[in-house]
Amino acid sequence: MERFLDLDAASQFAASKMKKNNLFTTERMFCDVYCFEPGQTQAAHAHEGSDKVYVVLEGAGEIQVGDDTRAVSAGAAVLAAAGEPHGVANTGDARMRVLVFMAPPP
Amino acid sequence: MERFLDLDAASQFAASKMKKNNLFTTERMFCDVYCFEPGQTQAAHAHEGSDKVYVVLEGAGEIQVGDDTRAVSAGAAVLAAAGEPHGVANTGDARMRVLVFMAPPP
Repeated sequence: MERFLDLDAASQFAASKMKKNNLFTTERMFCDVYCFEPGQTQAAHAHEGSDKVYVVLEGAGEIQVGDDTRAVSAGAAVLAAAGEPHGVANTGDARMRVLVFMAPPP
Repeated sequence: MERFLDLDAASQFAASKMKKNNLFTTERMFCDVYCFEPGQTQAAHAHEGSDKVYVVLEGAGEIQVGDDTRAVSAGAAVLAAAGEPHGVANTGDARMRVLVFMAPPP
């Protein structure tokens, strides 16, 4: 696995749905960049034994954790602890990129 | 623990040495923002049972993993797998901020 990556080079978008771009995966964690065109979403879901952190790199939208849905933009960091439903929506009119860290991989 | 945070608000610097600002800690991982004034460093060290990811948010410097030391700037993502020596140096003339994920906490 390449140890040194560039987030911009790794950020691929897809017209059909939000795209997950993996940066690193180990037995202990993974790190992805999720790319959302305007209107694209990650439906709320939960992982029973894994914690996830979202960090918004670019754009703006909404992130849900549990029953708490908030407007977020670049610089927001959000924790979804194990078992908590969580999801993302690009509600803006520009592209949205979100760094995702999860431990352990589900 | 607060689930929604702002990276800029969490980014505290210290004149004496690089400052680690914790965002989230669980039994499975932690997420910090490391803040380096020009010239400040994190000396190379290793964690036998934990993987670490660095993501450079702002500024420029050098990151070492194993015997590989590279120039990095905003948008660089770097993996230091368990057991690999790793460190950071702000070799620029501006502030440097680095997002850090580690799983599990050491």
